[in-house]
Amino acid sequence: MKFKSTILVTIMLICGICLAQTNTTVVEDFKPSSVNQPGKQYPQVNSERRVRTSISAPQALKVQLDIGGVKYDMKKDEKGVWTGESNPQDEGFHYYQLNIDGASVPDPGSIYFYGASRWGSGIEIPAKDQDFYALKNVPQGKISQHNYFSKITNAWRRCFVYTPAEYEKNTSARYPVLYLQHGMGEDETGWPDQGKAGIILDNLIAEKKAVPMIIVMDNGYASKPSQNAAPARGPAGGMQTFEEVLIKEIIPMIDENYRTFSDREHRAMAGLSMGANQTIQITMNNLDKFSYIGGFSGTSNFPRTDEIDPATFMTGKFNDGAALNKQIKLFWLGLGTKEPNPFPGSVGAFKAMLDKKGVKYKFYESQGTAHEWLTWRRDLFQFAPLLFR
Amino acid sequence: MKFKSTILVTIMLICGICLAQTNTTVVEDFKPSSVNQPGKQYPQVNSERRVRTSISAPQALKVQLDIGGVKYDMKKDEKGVWTGESNPQDEGFHYYQLNIDGASVPDPGSIYFYGASRWGSGIEIPAKDQDFYALKNVPQGKISQHNYFSKITNAWRRCFVYTPAEYEKNTSARYPVLYLQHGMGEDETGWPDQGKAGIILDNLIAEKKAVPMIIVMDNGYASKPSQNAAPARGPAGGMQTFEEVLIKEIIPMIDENYRTFSDREHRAMAGLSMGANQTIQITMNNLDKFSYIGGFSGTSNFPRTDEIDPATFMTGKFNDGAALNKQIKLFWLGLGTKEPNPFPGSVGAFKAMLDKKGVKYKFYESQGTAHEWLTWRRDLFQFAPLLFR
Repeated sequence: MKFKSTILVTIMLICGICLAQTNTTVVEDFKPSSVNQPGKQYPQVNSERRVRTSISAPQALKVQLDIGGVKYDMKKDEKGVWTGESNPQDEGFHYYQLNIDGASVPDPGSIYFYGASRWGSGIEIPAKDQDFYALKNVPQGKISQHNYFSKITNAWRRCFVYTPAEYEKNTSARYPVLYLQHGMGEDETGWPDQGKAGIILDNLIAEKKAVPMIIVMDNGYASKPSQNAAPARGPAGGMQTFEEVLIKEIIPMIDENYRTFSDREHRAMAGLSMGANQTIQITMNNLDKFSYIGGFSGTSNFPRTDEIDPATFMTGKFNDGAALNKQIKLFWLGLGTKEPNPFPGSVGAFKAMLDKKGVKYKFYESQGTAHEWLTWRRDLFQFAPLLFR
Repeated sequence: MKFKSTILVTIMLICGICLAQTNTTVVEDFKPSSVNQPGKQYPQVNSERRVRTSISAPQALKVQLDIGGVKYDMKKDEKGVWTGESNPQDEGFHYYQLNIDGASVPDPGSIYFYGASRWGSGIEIPAKDQDFYALKNVPQGKISQHNYFSKITNAWRRCFVYTPAEYEKNTSARYPVLYLQHGMGEDETGWPDQGKAGIILDNLIAEKKAVPMIIVMDNGYASKPSQNAAPARGPAGGMQTFEEVLIKEIIPMIDENYRTFSDREHRAMAGLSMGANQTIQITMNNLDKFSYIGGFSGTSNFPRTDEIDPATFMTGKFNDGAALNKQIKLFWLGLGTKEPNPFPGSVGAFKAMLDKKGVKYKFYESQGTAHEWLTWRRDLFQFAPLLFR
């Protein structure tokens, strides 16, 4: 046993050395991430799209960088500072965390974002097409935060509303509205923060590629007090009641407080993942209120990948393709080429069902991205120009 | 030496036992903090105002709760979960962090706030007077976020603007403006988030205790590219240029984009600590633009506590008390009764100088609070009703 252990340790050491040797090929052109806290030097990203971070933890036995589902061991220097880097990551935004002697914590160097049901670290890997979501010297819209009390959930909720730059100037103009939803484990901060929805629209509107519009970003979790003892806001609550809150409370609040066009021709809804599922359910239940539908990396058959029977799926709402084509101005489906199962299968089965019934839709593929925010930023960038034309 | 060490260790162990015994008297009525992340059970606060938190860190050797300048050792259970509590804290909001084997990190249970030059954990200790900053079923204003490019600093900056509930209804009405600044190591999120400025004003306006007003909350750090190589936004930059940015860029931007009254009679400025110092400097340099001045826990002689000579202080700007009393409608100074040095001394010296020159001012003391946000929430609650009357 002792001998075997020694061999095992030797093999592990050799592997460790191999790993270390691999690491010596890391390109040393790391720069601080664009979403670091002010003045913080770490985390950093290099031209290979590796993430390197560093933290002082003199008494720690083990510190790991946990990103993209992999935990990378970091190394301690003589001052007790641990440093380490990941393998190359996909372009775009990723959530990540540190693990210090078994404790999963945010990296003190990064700005924090809400995702994976927690406030935690995020990092930006520069993307080839990052210009479309870069802050530019164009007329800037603004994003407003509203607190409101929901009688349905008997709880306070929060809503972010993007208004385009011209909204404050053209004080008699009315605007169409896009309701835009986050995914599972995220909240109403997803689209304004890591989604960069306001910046994407400012840039599109400045180039006259999109019609000036209002975007409403609310929290997709909502449950009645009877449905869940946990707080109704955030992933701790359920999502049983979101449709009712959206239709009966959020839309009337927006139409009352903003200069909107309130007919179905001027109202769109889109969402990512869980939000896509919700979007398809809610818009199909309320076609008198919506005429544009966007499903980013998600469909209402999720997580099933088997063939959909339109006669029974969603109580037959997709049965009459010709009628739907008259009502729906745009049915958008998007997917990253690197998305994991079951997304390709479930979106594929949904598309096949639409094809079978002759329901028109546009399908967009984001190249080289997974079930992450660069996929959804690109979706919004491609989807928004098609709205309200 | 060895013997002495043993005695020392023994003494330390006895003290440790004493501490543990003291801890057994902790009142077990802990409840999750009101600023926890959704669904998180820790941190918690009890009726003694102790903070208890808990984190899983199976391999850690030492975990501490670091709050109020004191590090409290936490204890590990058989599952590797560390739990521990602090001594009773003052009422109100406090920044805090965890220390895991020497690494200072945010507590994964709390929402994060920007202070102490970092995004980190915060906790609310319920206060006797917390009703004035509680979300209530009154007309809700909104807080808007603007990104704007500053030519002076050659960098993007961010500004939060509170507009009262009626702003969207009375579309021809104009409103006075309060410019409200954060303290050292904080940023433009301080007043809208932990400061609860919007909620405080909504409540005051609903009770007709304050005039409906716009509040502008920007970042007090600003430096020209030539002044500082570090990013101009946030504490990494200096504050040399904030006056120029405020006067030449922020105020014109606000007056252009909002329905403001733009004369000095309808413009106020206030700030806390560093922001109070800036407020007094900027308003006194620009009395043609401001007529209300609020210094919360700070004055422009900071950190000095010695007697001020009005003939030379701020180039003699306080020399003519009678003239100032005609120009300044309100000069407000505030201080918590538990503030540490040098604040009582420096504010005291400033007051003495005003007394000497016969400059009228109101002095407010926040009972039982230190150099922290409950002091400044109370300042705003008392100060805002006196504005624009």
